[in-house]
Amino acid sequence: MIKMSVYYPAEGGSKFDHDYYRTSHMPLIKERLGDACLRYEIDKGLAGREPGSAPAFVAACHVYSPSLETFQRAFAPHRAEIAADVANYTDIAPTVQISEVVGG
Amino acid sequence: MIKMSVYYPAEGGSKFDHDYYRTSHMPLIKERLGDACLRYEIDKGLAGREPGSAPAFVAACHVYSPSLETFQRAFAPHRAEIAADVANYTDIAPTVQISEVVGG
Repeated sequence: MIKMSVYYPAEGGSKFDHDYYRTSHMPLIKERLGDACLRYEIDKGLAGREPGSAPAFVAACHVYSPSLETFQRAFAPHRAEIAADVANYTDIAPTVQISEVVGG
Repeated sequence: MIKMSVYYPAEGGSKFDHDYYRTSHMPLIKERLGDACLRYEIDKGLAGREPGSAPAFVAACHVYSPSLETFQRAFAPHRAEIAADVANYTDIAPTVQISEVVGG
């Protein structure tokens, strides 16, 4: 199983609409990906290592998929539509990472 | 529910022993945290946004806990022991983040 993670650095921009992200953007991705999205998870940054410190990321999402090929094949036809929706909730340029889920 | 995430930047050091992390370090944390660790997940970095590109993080872990207070109370007595084990698998200075799991 792999996950595609998208991280929004707290220092990277001026706005992030958590409500829109949770209620519109992520459901859009799940709907478009279909079975290629096993599940997804949304993080809202609270703090860094020390209590009360600023988090590195204001938000993140993780989309779980059976394999990288499955994810890429399902995502490609919807890339433009999904990318066009980003301006509705943030101006932060995100960091994208693909990881293998190796244990837990 | 919250999660404590630990990210190991790919540019941050010279070694990361994924096997030790998976088979020794993370099980140690789970054992010491007891019920304060609902579950944990380990990521092994594969790529960035473009296929074949380098991932931002060589590895990461996410420890899920009912609340920040529960996690901190359970972690504090074992902090020194857990920190002392880090040199056994990496020399990368990690980024720690506490997030609220808000949806998925």
